[in-house]
Amino acid sequence: MRCPHCHRPIVVYKGPSPTVDIIIEIEGKIVLIERKNPPYGWALPGGFVDYGESYEQAALREALEETGLEVSDLRQFHTYSDPSRDARQHTASTVFIGKAGGRPVAGDDAGRVELFDEGSLPSLAFDHARILADYYAAKKSRQHGAADPIHPSS
Amino acid sequence: MRCPHCHRPIVVYKGPSPTVDIIIEIEGKIVLIERKNPPYGWALPGGFVDYGESYEQAALREALEETGLEVSDLRQFHTYSDPSRDARQHTASTVFIGKAGGRPVAGDDAGRVELFDEGSLPSLAFDHARILADYYAAKKSRQHGAADPIHPSS
Repeated sequence: MRCPHCHRPIVVYKGPSPTVDIIIEIEGKIVLIERKNPPYGWALPGGFVDYGESYEQAALREALEETGLEVSDLRQFHTYSDPSRDARQHTASTVFIGKAGGRPVAGDDAGRVELFDEGSLPSLAFDHARILADYYAAKKSRQHGAADPIHPSS
Repeated sequence: MRCPHCHRPIVVYKGPSPTVDIIIEIEGKIVLIERKNPPYGWALPGGFVDYGESYEQAALREALEETGLEVSDLRQFHTYSDPSRDARQHTASTVFIGKAGGRPVAGDDAGRVELFDEGSLPSLAFDHARILADYYAAKKSRQHGAADPIHPSS
């Protein structure tokens, strides 16, 4: 980057930017938001993690800001870090699963917010189609006799 | 931060810095390194993720750099992001589990590298004692009849 004052080049250490996304389950459906900003399309609620905030806190905050929902039973699913998953810059998303009740209300970056089931998913931004394919595959695997995933206490 | 040329203040967006740590299994034991730099103590092999590198690539790279081991069967375990887990700055570690054979050799940031089993763990830096407690608890849970954790394809 360049200094905004003197315009000379500055080296800043920068790794991938950590983000969170949340699969919010409401009565067997999941919550998606329609993005107001590019890349357009539908997406899981989520966003950048703030410095000094745990990823769990960030997931609850983003869910509330973007959908108005208070999420419970939050658990980690998987972290997606392929450098090409967001064309704008290298972001890595830690994806959470949680439950909510009531009706979501669009806030912040969201144009609309709606509930979808697996058979009626819209066109998704980023790698969110892959994330949801993994999510539904893991769900089916559990329903067919495998135990719940083992999660560390948190 | 301040510009190194004109010394005027600059605002740089900064989230937590993503890191990876790897639990490398060798014949029922795990590999730990003794840190040459503060915070001193023993730790899982690991380090900062580079921009443009997936977390999986970072885990394999750090394992090789710090222990000389080629890790196989890499899978994600959990991401630890509590802001107090590293006193120097807010880092968030995505922890992986993998397997290796042969004998580890200390490299890079490592003073010594040794194999440990659960009953003989040394004093650990960061939150690595908690990470390993979670790891051994998950392992026992699997041994007592629960199925393997469900992991998305990667």
